[in-house]
Order: sequence, then structure tokens, then C-alpha cells
Amino acid sequence: MSKTARVLIDCQDAKGLVYHISKVFYDRGLNIDNNREFVDKEKGKFFMRTVVTGEFDVVSLRNELISVVPRDAHIRVIEPRPKKIVLMATKESHCLGDILIRWAAGELEADIEAVISNHDNLRELTRRFDIPFLYISSGDIERREHERLVLDVLDGLTFDYIVLAKYMRILSADFVHRYPERIINIHHSFLPAFVGANPYKQAHARGVKIIGATAHFVTTDLDEGPIISQDVIPVNHRLEWKDMQRSGRDVEKIVLARALSLVLNDRVFVNDNKTIVF
Amino acid sequence: MSKTARVLIDCQDAKGLVYHISKVFYDRGLNIDNNREFVDKEKGKFFMRTVVTGEFDVVSLRNELISVVPRDAHIRVIEPRPKKIVLMATKESHCLGDILIRWAAGELEADIEAVISNHDNLRELTRRFDIPFLYISSGDIERREHERLVLDVLDGLTFDYIVLAKYMRILSADFVHRYPERIINIHHSFLPAFVGANPYKQAHARGVKIIGATAHFVTTDLDEGPIISQDVIPVNHRLEWKDMQRSGRDVEKIVLARALSLVLNDRVFVNDNKTIVF
Amino acid sequence: MSKTARVLIDCQDAKGLVYHISKVFYDRGLNIDNNREFVDKEKGKFFMRTVVTGEFDVVSLRNELISVVPRDAHIRVIEPRPKKIVLMATKESHCLGDILIRWAAGELEADIEAVISNHDNLRELTRRFDIPFLYISSGDIERREHERLVLDVLDGLTFDYIVLAKYMRILSADFVHRYPERIINIHHSFLPAFVGANPYKQAHARGVKIIGATAHFVTTDLDEGPIISQDVIPVNHRLEWKDMQRSGRDVEKIVLARALSLVLNDRVFVNDNKTIVF
Amino acid sequence: MSKTARVLIDCQDAKGLVYHISKVFYDRGLNIDNNREFVDKEKGKFFMRTVVTGEFDVVSLRNELISVVPRDAHIRVIEPRPKKIVLMATKESHCLGDILIRWAAGELEADIEAVISNHDNLRELTRRFDIPFLYISSGDIERREHERLVLDVLDGLTFDYIVLAKYMRILSADFVHRYPERIINIHHSFLPAFVGANPYKQAHARGVKIIGATAHFVTTDLDEGPIISQDVIPVNHRLEWKDMQRSGRDVEKIVLARALSLVLNDRVFVNDNKTIVF
Repeated sequence: MSKTARVLIDCQDAKGLVYHISKVFYDRGLNIDNNREFVDKEKGKFFMRTVVTGEFDVVSLRNELISVVPRDAHIRVIEPRPKKIVLMATKESHCLGDILIRWAAGELEADIEAVISNHDNLRELTRRFDIPFLYISSGDIERREHERLVLDVLDGLTFDYIVLAKYMRILSADFVHRYPERIINIHHSFLPAFVGANPYKQAHARGVKIIGATAHFVTTDLDEGPIISQDVIPVNHRLEWKDMQRSGRDVEKIVLARALSLVLNDRVFVNDNKTIVF
Repeated sequence: MSKTARVLIDCQDAKGLVYHISKVFYDRGLNIDNNREFVDKEKGKFFMRTVVTGEFDVVSLRNELISVVPRDAHIRVIEPRPKKIVLMATKESHCLGDILIRWAAGELEADIEAVISNHDNLRELTRRFDIPFLYISSGDIERREHERLVLDVLDGLTFDYIVLAKYMRILSADFVHRYPERIINIHHSFLPAFVGANPYKQAHARGVKIIGATAHFVTTDLDEGPIISQDVIPVNHRLEWKDMQRSGRDVEKIVLARALSLVLNDRVFVNDNKTIVF
Repeated sequence: MSKTARVLIDCQDAKGLVYHISKVFYDRGLNIDNNREFVDKEKGKFFMRTVVTGEFDVVSLRNELISVVPRDAHIRVIEPRPKKIVLMATKESHCLGDILIRWAAGELEADIEAVISNHDNLRELTRRFDIPFLYISSGDIERREHERLVLDVLDGLTFDYIVLAKYMRILSADFVHRYPERIINIHHSFLPAFVGANPYKQAHARGVKIIGATAHFVTTDLDEGPIISQDVIPVNHRLEWKDMQRSGRDVEKIVLARALSLVLNDRVFVNDNKTIVF
Repeated sequence: MSKTARVLIDCQDAKGLVYHISKVFYDRGLNIDNNREFVDKEKGKFFMRTVVTGEFDVVSLRNELISVVPRDAHIRVIEPRPKKIVLMATKESHCLGDILIRWAAGELEADIEAVISNHDNLRELTRRFDIPFLYISSGDIERREHERLVLDVLDGLTFDYIVLAKYMRILSADFVHRYPERIINIHHSFLPAFVGANPYKQAHARGVKIIGATAHFVTTDLDEGPIISQDVIPVNHRLEWKDMQRSGRDVEKIVLARALSLVLNDRVFVNDNKTIVF
């Protein structure tokens, strides 16, 4: 029975990789629906994402690919299915709401397992979509203790990605290390401009003529993780910082949604502190 | 001695094309520097652009590729060298000037053989760059006769592409048929909006909030040729049509320059009335 | 007691208008928070939007302004309050959902009186927000009859604007004439490119490199009403028309939301078939 | 005899400013062609740019305006005429060339008094336009000494603005203080991202998806002066930093040209470390 798989390979660059890999597909009679490669010459690294259709067994296809690529290769053979995500948010509703609406319309390639928040005010919005809302207050409690409570909840859930949909707390290195390349954040500035708190205030104070938003994987360096997607809008002297924040929300939600869609479609490779987006 | 070639293949789609083609490169010990493919599923057409380096003979490499791809295949093996172009213009200088400046800076991947104009006023600008300026007046003369004079001049020149840098006359079907996929035009609107004359006046009259420019290959259907590049800028009610024209000039020259660079780097396939841009 | 008003004046242009109008504000001791003017020289028309604060009576302020401007003047003195809107939709949920989310977040400067649809499938989404959903099927019924049913419903509602959030039926001239400058539509193309049905299919067929969306007031000329807002995104040969549609949805919803916010903040004048946006 | 003036006023905000100022114009029978105001509420500052036509004497109009505005007011009554500029550059030709082309086309609202460079390689380009090229080598000489030589040259010229068209040396505080709000620079990044040297290398290393350029007035804080104009373009993982630099050049030259046009049209107010652009 014919089926489809996304084959993602990244490894040390070597001569003949495209040939050897496409030979595997050819010998098995698989069709290549879509194929993209990239070589990072500086680092000598090879990246390839191929969508194949035909009859195959995932394990044996993967094993055959392993036999033709360098030993350090990271190979994924993924049959498309909705991924599972957990959303984390704080008080602002625009990113969360946008994801919920996409989910309700059947346009999100994911199931939402839960919404976790350190405030209670997004409960009603989440409830409208019959998604579990887990309120873990960060008040009157130490940072470490709060994070432990969040981790306890996450331990009880099954998911592929954590999406920080305007979760306004910094995650500890311990937390981040548990989910490598699995936490996606939206930062409300055009990084690396305006790292840290209150980027709209910073942008207003600096008098920039353009503001933006950045979706990135979370690493232990604050606002320094691999960037997945960015976008910008023009502003001018008439906007106070609150106006910039208001306008910026639309950019934030669209940029986060684009990044999420790319990740859910297995289109993003992490290449040290950068991404390859196919 | 190691050298580089851009291999461009377009043909009917078939199973195993990537495998067969990459096998040719592999068997000859060529490195793939860069590789991009696209399958137009609707039309069942395959497009591939590969940059290879190594030791090879162009003719025998091409012959070997011919032996592994469908019979209808169009194969080009191109060793990068500056192409030759002829510029045609009328009165406006911004596109012509921009190309001249790039050429003078050594940033244009082409030699400019001549500037042909139906008006005399761009002579001084062209002369500043020591490029031949050929004035073929279109006054007091029939369209057909004028075009014949232009063709006579072109017949005496050797060139790869004709670039219409704001040449404001419509070319006849006879003219266009002599240079298939070799004439690039810049149209001063975001096509297909505002086809024909005075697009800025049309845009102003319609009250659009964005204007643009379109670079395309010239076919016999006016403003209907395959689009290579487009870009836009915001406008508002305060701009009169002359202001739109002034602002639009910057978009026109940048869009034409981008399209030209893509074509000169052999990055553009024509796919009926569309382009594939790698 | 100090309050705020938005004063909107449009009239035949005349010498001294700014002086005469600002004198009225000055004599009454009103503060000008914000002031913007525009003169359409071609048509000899003057537009002014001023936000004033202070103590005033709306009627007498308006009367005083009437006494200093040309007779044809259209003067509005508006105390900011949430407007009332009715949403009309068909099957697609992205624009409707986006407006509902903004409303739920308290970020829409309007109350939503009802959602009217000619299909039933948006009922559940609307219900999530406790907004009345009025299903008026267009099946097995003449166009004229369906519209009469919609008008009957509208007659029972009180509202300032009708927002066509992807309402895919053409409104008759009779319908449109009842709500002059009060119906806002989102068209899924960068007008005037791709007027009419299936603009994404048209855009794909034409091979454009940029697609867009247009929010406009509805007039009796299909897709020809005054444009309020437009935006675009880049596309390329890899996108099939369904992909363009998917990407385009984000542009549509943001452009509609921007236009709606401008209208709800009384920032838009209609100037024949164009808008002045302050 | 009727003439035109741009009246620029900035002062402490006060009630009735628009009234008092427009009364001056009205009493003198002047037409207001264009009028824009802005109040910076945070700082309590008022900015106004009015284009008036009619019969007037500059000095007496200015005196009359002085009598109706706060004492701290800065008032300029400017009759439009080409300003005079001096260009400074180093090795890159794209910004210089773009300005020269605009000048040659009669589209620059300025006369170019001279091009000053610390390298000799732009001499030929400048000579093509018959503009004086002044080469002041920075080799084998102390920074302070080089700057003194430049200042000596500038002292012999008459000009309104210095345009740093990719002048790659940092100006001393002494230099900057001599020309307050009169030096315009183009920085090859989207400030405040990538301050300092080699912004394209920084952008490449960070893996951003968008790069940009910033035109700003030069102050003694490096890359911190008031921003006049910014723009951006998308990039992706395939671009090496040299490719980013190449693409970025088009943004740089367009942003600098826009900023220059705004300044030459007296559309820019400096408001501490920000600009008001009308």
C-alpha cells in the first residue's frame, strides 16, 4: 500500500551523498515528490529533506539509508501525522487565540494537549475551545518551585513540542535541557535588536521606523536560540509604545504561526545556533 | 584542471531522474556545490539546476546526461562567464543608470554591448560610462520601419539578452519571435494590475495603498510574459500620481536588477507563461 | 466635565479653513490632541480629523463648526464608544475567527451583534464566543429571496457596520444602497489584480511572485469600492494554488482587521472611489 | 508675486498653537498647501510643518510667527531651492553611484559640491559625473591628523549637509559637533541590531531571516543617532555573508536616498534622539 514519508538527513558533507541517497529511493521504487538539499560549506555539513511516496517499511528504509551515509548522520523517516503540542502562555491572548482558531478550523497540523499558564485569565478563552487549561500560579512561590510544578504537569503529558505563546517567564537551563529543539518561543522584537524585557518600550525609546517579531527555538542563552521565522511592520513617530505593542501583536501571532507550521511539517533543521528552513 | 559548470535540465518528469543525473556526476567524480529541483506536477515537468565542480568536458558531460534523461529534455551545461547584453531605453534614466552603475562597479555579471534608444537624451549619461549609444529616432517614421532599423543594429551585435530598461514602445511579434526568452522588460506596475499605459495614473485613480513593479520575459502578449521578479512599496492618499511615479522608480530599478542578476546567473527556467527561479 | 471627541470634517476646499476651525476649538478652550488634514487639489476637497478634549456639548460644537465651513460640509462630532457591527461569512473561518478572538480579548473597538451566514458550518465557532449565529441558507432559493431574508434579519438589528468576513456572495445594488459606506469587504487578492472568482487560482495561473489581500468599502461595482487597506506576501513557483490560499489567509485576516480598526476609530474618509486614511 | 515657503516650527506645546499659527497665515492671505503637526505628549513638544503659498516677506513672516509661539520656539521659513551637499565615501560605490545617477537625472534636490574619500578608487566614477573628487588618504597618518585635513577641505566649501555614503571611518566628537543635525549616515544593518563593524558577518553568524539598513543623523554616540529611515529584505540559510552584503547594498542605497530626499525637502525634525518625519 502506497504511503508517504518525509526523510530528513543531516550529516557531515561527503561526495556522492545525493547519488547514494537517491539510489536507495530508486532501488526501492519510491517516487520523490519533493527534494531539497543544502550544504553548509563553512561547517562541512549536509542537510536533505525528501518527500517520498511508494511502498516501504520505515525501519528498513531507515536502515538502508544509514548504510550509505556517514556515521554521524542523523536520519529521520517521518510518516506525516498530527503532532502533539503543549501551549504555555501568561496573560496576553493573541498568540494563544490565533493557534486555537487555527486548530478549531482544522488548519493546525497538531493536537493541542493542554494550555499551561502562570495566570488564570486565559482560562475562559481556552475553555471556549474545550482544551484543558492548567493554571500553575507563579505567585508566592520560588521560581525553581514553580518550574518543578510545571515539569510535573509536563511529565504527565505526551507531546512533541512546547510552544511558548507569550509565556513571559525565563526558563531555567535544567528545563530547557530536557526538551532540546522542542521548545518554540515568540519574542516580541526583531532579534537581535531589543533583547530582554519590554522590547516595544525599547523600540519606542530608540525611535526605530520598523518593528518586528522573532520565532526561535529556546536554548539556554536568553533570546539567542536558532531563529525560525521573523517579520516586520513599519512604524512612525506617531505611535506610542502601547500602539507599537498593539500593532506588533499581529506580527507576533503570524510569525509564531508560520514557525509552528514549518516545524510541524518537519521543514526545519537546527544547525548549531541557526536553522535551515526547507 | 578543476572547473565549475551550471547544469540546467528541464524535461518530462520520470521516476529516478535525480538518481540517474546524480549518478552521472558521481561516476565522473564531480562535486555538487548546489542543487535544486522542482517538479510541476500539474504539467508533469521536471526542472533541475546543479552547480558542479571538478574535471570534465562540457560536450561529453552533456552527452552523458542526454543518455539518462527523457528524449524531450532540454540540457544546458554552462561555464560561468560574463554574458553580453544590449540595453534599450527611451527617456527615463533610472533603470539604465542603475545598470550602468552596477556595471562600473564590476557587480554586473555582464558586458554591456550597447545602449539603443529612440530618443537622444540618454546619450550623455551613457557616454559617461564609455558605452556605445545608438540613437534610432522613432519620429517621422513608421513603427515597422523603426523596428527594422533597430533589428539591423542588433544584427550587427553579439549578445545573450536584450534588457528593456524602460523602453516605452511595444515590440512586434516578429521582433519578439527572434529572441525567445531573451528579452527582459520592466513594467511599472504590480502585474497583472494596471496593464498597459500609464500604470501610475491608473493606480492613483484606483486609490490603491500599494504600488509595485514587475520584471518579465517579453512574449507577444503585451505585459503577459513570464514574471521573473516583483516588488512593492506602500503609498497613501497624499501621493499624487507623479509622486507615485517618483517612488515607483526605485522599485522598478531594483526589481529589474534582481531579475537581471537571476537571469545572468542562469537561475531562471521558463515554464510556459511562468518562471521557475532557483 | 472633560471629555473627548473626534471631529471629522470634509467639504469644498477654501482659504482659511484650518484657521476658522481651530478658532472654534480655541475659543471654546478645547485641547487639540491630534490633528490631520488633507486637501485633494484635483477635486478641490478638504478633509480634517481632529481629536479634541475639554468641556463641550456635541450639538452646539457641531453647530458652531457648521457656521464657519462651506455649506456642503459634512461634519461629524463623535464621542468614542464601541460601535456595533454585524459579521457576515460563508464557510471559511479565518477572518471570522480572528475578529472573534480580538473581540474576546477586548481589543476590538466594537460589539458584535450577530454573525449571519449562508452556511451552517461556522455555527460552532461562533457559539464558542456566545455570539448569536443566524443561519440563512442560500440553497434551493432564489438570490433575491435569500437577500430579502438577510435584510429582514438586518432590519431587526441595530448596527453601524456590516463586515463581510469572507462572505462569498455578491450583494445586489439594492442591498448595497441601503448601507452606503457601511459595508466592509475583504477581497482575497491585491486589487485590481484578479477581480472576481478564485483569485488564488488566477494568481497561480499567472505565475505572480507576490500575492495580497484588499479590504474595501462595498459599492455596486464588484471589487471596485474604495480601498481601505492592502498587504502582500511573497510566493514562488513551489506553491500550488491551495498553498497560496493557505498563506493568503493570514494576509486576509490581518488586512481586514486593520481596515476594521481604522474604520472603528473613525480614521477613514471616503473620497469618491478612494479613501483618505488618517 | 506669489511664492512658496516651508514653515517649520518646533516648540514647547501650548494650547491654541494651531489656531495662532494658522491665524498668521490667514491674516496675511496665505494659502496652506499642506500642513502636518505632531505633539510629543511625553516631552510636551509641538512640531508643525506647513507649506504656504502667497505673497510674503520671509523675515517679517518669521517675526510675526515668533510673536505668537512660545519663546523656546525654533522657527524656519524656507523657500525651496536646491540644497548643497558634500558626499564622503570610502571604497564601496553603490551609495555614491546611486546619488550621482539621481543628480545626473535632475532628481536630486541638491547640488553636489564635492566627493571626499580616504581612498582613491572612486575617483573614476566621480569623474564620470564631472564632480570634484578630493582624495585625502588616511594611510600612514594619525586619525586626528586625517580628520583635520578633511576639515580643512570642508572649511573651504559651502554646504548644507554632509552625506556619508559608506564612509567607513568613525568621526570624532569634535567633527560631529561642528555639524549638528547636518551629517547623514547609512549603516548597513537594521539598527539597533548589529551595531559596529561587519554587520553582515554578524547577521550571518546570528542566522537572522531578515536584514536591513538604517539612515540616521550622526551624533557622537556611534550608530545611536536619530533614525530617519529603515528598510529590510528577507534572507535565508543559503546566503553566505558576502551574499547578504550584495543583497544588502540595494537596501542601503535606497534607504539612504529616501532619507536624503526627506531631509532635502525639510521633512525631518530631530526630537532628541528620534526624528519626526512629515
